Amino acid sequence: MRIGVLGTGMVGNTIGSKLIQLGHEVRMGSRAAGNEKAVAWAVQAGEDASEGTFAESAAFGEIVVNCTAGVASLDALAAAGEENLAGKLLIDVANPIDFSGGMPPTLSVCNDDSLGESIQRAFPGARVVKALNTVNCDVMVEPLSVPGEHVAFVCGDEAAAKDEAVALLGTFGWPPERVLDLGGISASRGLEMYLLFWLGVYGALGTHRFNIAIAR
Amino acid sequence: MRIGVLGTGMVGNTIGSKLIQLGHEVRMGSRAAGNEKAVAWAVQAGEDASEGTFAESAAFGEIVVNCTAGVASLDALAAAGEENLAGKLLIDVANPIDFSGGMPPTLSVCNDDSLGESIQRAFPGARVVKALNTVNCDVMVEPLSVPGEHVAFVCGDEAAAKDEAVALLGTFGWPPERVLDLGGISASRGLEMYLLFWLGVYGALGTHRFNIAIAR
Repeated sequence: MRIGVLGTGMVGNTIGSKLIQLGHEVRMGSRAAGNEKAVAWAVQAGEDASEGTFAESAAFGEIVVNCTAGVASLDALAAAGEENLAGKLLIDVANPIDFSGGMPPTLSVCNDDSLGESIQRAFPGARVVKALNTVNCDVMVEPLSVPGEHVAFVCGDEAAAKDEAVALLGTFGWPPERVLDLGGISASRGLEMYLLFWLGVYGALGTHRFNIAIAR
Repeated sequence: MRIGVLGTGMVGNTIGSKLIQLGHEVRMGSRAAGNEKAVAWAVQAGEDASEGTFAESAAFGEIVVNCTAGVASLDALAAAGEENLAGKLLIDVANPIDFSGGMPPTLSVCNDDSLGESIQRAFPGARVVKALNTVNCDVMVEPLSVPGEHVAFVCGDEAAAKDEAVALLGTFGWPPERVLDLGGISASRGLEMYLLFWLGVYGALGTHRFNIAIAR
């Protein structure tokens, strides 16, 4: 498939490269075409990889993955253009982490709202699915690198969109029985607020290569 | 030991009864002595159980466990009295869940502060340890009822206080190797914000009898 990956950071790089590996065509989007990091990625990732503006990336993709910094995601998606997102599965893996106040970071939105909901509200034509934001990007694309029956989470308002996201996650190595559907997009609140918990566990373990399994 | 359990709800009942079972003397505290639920609990729990005001409960305890509703905890602890908490291990199992705005609930404090921190700030003489707030009260006291290597979390500013809390958790059935120390009391932010995530998983699973294991 053709997939637009918005964001040139570590998450965009990692997900973009995984998608290339899986045989997709990927266009990485950033604020301006010719972004140094996006060009470097595209050169390294091979002939199925390209780069362009957020709008060019979103227009290119049959699926769009939001890998921008959460605090900048709404701006990035506005630049991508509502018309380039309409009707498409928009997988939002971002966390609205705000480091501007120093450590520990806070979330720029939480509790009675979330980034996932904000995106769905701002782009009602997009089929938003929150996914994978509860693990580090290495674990997102290589879940088998962490042993055990650990799980990924999705939420979103449209069941068919979640099915498509779960299928894509399956190709990353997340079998459907290890993807837990938390319901509508408002469940993004919990998935994003989990970030502060994740940071605590990360600090205690000293590694980002972990995830959680559900015991029941 | 003598333990003061503040709160007459399900959590206070469950923890109070478990502590009685383990051979402790427990005084359940509430706003006014003779509280109907506290009296009923004390009668049922036997001769090592008693009830009284928050202050009487805290004064009685060598350890105090905060099982009050999180949004009312600071008031309850103020009624308990700084002098009755000073120097004591204060285990805070509460979540600051605010249902006043309807469903889904929000937290009355989060992101750049937490209930655990608020309590430690308000009662600097207390040795506050946040613990067990990430599981339902049945799981708190009967972790073996959930299979698997699932974990409990603690945080707090004083290492010795955490050691005492971990020892008490051990008697509940949480072996030390399944209690993860997330650091200082500010880690309460993540442990409390986890609540919104917990609610999502609870909704998806349809049972509160679950917990998480760390895969790494």
